[in-house]
Amino acid sequence: MLDFTYSIPTKIHFGKDALDFVGEEVKKYSSKVLLTYGGGSIKKNGVYDKVVKELKESGVEIFELSGIEPNPRIDSVRKGVKIIKENNIGAILAVGGGSTIDASKFMAAGALADFDPWEFISKGKPMSPAIPLLSVLTMAATGSEMDNGGVITNPETKEKLSSGHPDTKPKVSFLNPEITYTVSKYQTACGSSDILSHIFENYFNQYGSMYMLDRMMESLMKTVIKYGPIAMKDPNNYEARANLMWASSWAINGFISSSSKSQWTVHPIEHELSAFYDITHGLGLAILTPRWMEYVLNETTAHKFYDLGVNVFDIDKDLDQIEVAKKTIEKVKEFFFDTLGLDSNLKEIGIDDKYFDQMSKKACGKKEKIDGFIELSPADVRKIYEMCLED
Amino acid sequence: MLDFTYSIPTKIHFGKDALDFVGEEVKKYSSKVLLTYGGGSIKKNGVYDKVVKELKESGVEIFELSGIEPNPRIDSVRKGVKIIKENNIGAILAVGGGSTIDASKFMAAGALADFDPWEFISKGKPMSPAIPLLSVLTMAATGSEMDNGGVITNPETKEKLSSGHPDTKPKVSFLNPEITYTVSKYQTACGSSDILSHIFENYFNQYGSMYMLDRMMESLMKTVIKYGPIAMKDPNNYEARANLMWASSWAINGFISSSSKSQWTVHPIEHELSAFYDITHGLGLAILTPRWMEYVLNETTAHKFYDLGVNVFDIDKDLDQIEVAKKTIEKVKEFFFDTLGLDSNLKEIGIDDKYFDQMSKKACGKKEKIDGFIELSPADVRKIYEMCLED
Repeated sequence: MLDFTYSIPTKIHFGKDALDFVGEEVKKYSSKVLLTYGGGSIKKNGVYDKVVKELKESGVEIFELSGIEPNPRIDSVRKGVKIIKENNIGAILAVGGGSTIDASKFMAAGALADFDPWEFISKGKPMSPAIPLLSVLTMAATGSEMDNGGVITNPETKEKLSSGHPDTKPKVSFLNPEITYTVSKYQTACGSSDILSHIFENYFNQYGSMYMLDRMMESLMKTVIKYGPIAMKDPNNYEARANLMWASSWAINGFISSSSKSQWTVHPIEHELSAFYDITHGLGLAILTPRWMEYVLNETTAHKFYDLGVNVFDIDKDLDQIEVAKKTIEKVKEFFFDTLGLDSNLKEIGIDDKYFDQMSKKACGKKEKIDGFIELSPADVRKIYEMCLED
Repeated sequence: MLDFTYSIPTKIHFGKDALDFVGEEVKKYSSKVLLTYGGGSIKKNGVYDKVVKELKESGVEIFELSGIEPNPRIDSVRKGVKIIKENNIGAILAVGGGSTIDASKFMAAGALADFDPWEFISKGKPMSPAIPLLSVLTMAATGSEMDNGGVITNPETKEKLSSGHPDTKPKVSFLNPEITYTVSKYQTACGSSDILSHIFENYFNQYGSMYMLDRMMESLMKTVIKYGPIAMKDPNNYEARANLMWASSWAINGFISSSSKSQWTVHPIEHELSAFYDITHGLGLAILTPRWMEYVLNETTAHKFYDLGVNVFDIDKDLDQIEVAKKTIEKVKEFFFDTLGLDSNLKEIGIDDKYFDQMSKKACGKKEKIDGFIELSPADVRKIYEMCLED
């Protein structure tokens, strides 16, 4: 167990009344706000109208940037920064899922920087200071509503990379589970996959977490496994949407990871898939996760798969450790591919081995390795990609 | 599930290096601090010297108030307020367990009030504004290091009552599990009992919590049940002390209670015991809890005891619900009285029925009832006290 500092000051308004607080909270930070959003679904489901009404009633002047892409691009960030600087805007309200909120984090820091925002990535410049960011969450998945970080894509360099700083953590996030009723079956499945993967990335770590946090991670996993399928079958089920939404925040806000830092593994491997092929992040994670599990399972690592199997998937605790571990991986596959109904290999989504070498190297980054639960070299990563071509 | 606002801005330095940050953190708030502590055990275990060294190195001027009692009294609060006002002190650093931190919350608010601090209780005056409070935790139990509230006793009126405000929540708390190595076996047992009771008070509620939070509460319970006994047998076990310490904070910081508010039950019943007899809070809770459980168990409430039994005490899920519920209560008794070794009834600690009528009425307060998981009248409370005289 490592020493740690815990600090999650993000305030959350959660529930059916959450958006009633948008105006008063934004107003505390600025009388001019940049409203950022994606493809306009918020105009169909009433969220846009509600947000604008609340802001106007509080006397906040609204500027807008729409069209933020899934796998958001650095150009959107540049556009946002330009609007903020030209109009002397003091806060951002991101209305969307992880993509919109992630891009807005880069805008929040870019607003106070005198260089191109891609340098937060290419030159590793710190994303601090930043103007205040607030968010209205429309999809349970990335946890961006309560954490530091964001992922951004540069199509020119085929790079999809992350950065973040405590200053870019949302000051306030508004979580109304009802808003996610309109999230499609497929996106609900991908969101559930993403949340589960965040928990796995922390659960499988090098140092060993506190017992308390391991059990809490299992609680979060049980929540996703129970409610992901319910939300797919019954999209207006409030309990399901609420549990998924709050679990998405806690999977990645820093709480469960605090006692054991280690580099994430499946996420960087997946980021190359969606950087090269623009596939949905949660789908890529689902395809990769069980292959990664099979690749790293051995006598030394089996105990962790055993805990997962016994505590989350209710596998008989009296079975042999390795046997439980293997059954656990089968249960993970079953959940992703049967229960959530996601495609189970890369061929099915039209991906072959053409870029595997390039992707494997990029996934390992400058350190030329992924120093996660089990250290992986580019050759290891390539093997995992190859396993994803098999049935 | 209810709508809620989540806001826990307290920053935590956790681990063996936690106290290294005391000076720099206090200095952010004030260059003069009131250092509050209890009976002086911190002078024996090196904590006092460490804290003073860190404060001095950061150039913080120190004023002291020692001698804060277990079940802290309003007179200590008055003394603290006097020192703060006379010396224009800008922050408080409480070094201790719940008693010292609780009393310091009343001082923090009292420092900016122009009335006697007992009026926070007697007249319900809001504990806001308040000067910044920071805390060094020396015992895992009350969770006061990360929550709003405090309990204070007035010996003249035999009243032990609570109040609190977001403004009195510690800004920063320093949690080094090693500091709790010197907590006695008995106090470790009482602390474990207190933590467990905080979780029960939230778990057994009127509205029904989110599934995710119910599972997280069970994770916290498992943590206490696993590590309480280990810490008693092996006081220098870091994992045990760390898990108990972090669980103490999360049992009561507002996270697990957020989706379902209801009035606590066993705590107000216990507060009368310690107000009348000055017994240790955790001991009183241990004696009361299983009796309260027996009193409220019925066909309607059994499902919650069933969840507790199956998910925490590993009782066979295929048994009849009421049977599981009864076995669960036996497990709770076993944990408090056999595993933790606490006295199992009031006779053993020299308490008889002399004040039961008075105590029952006071426990129910002005509303003349406790509106918790199951509503209790003074007559109900009296019956629960009576059950505590039986073996």
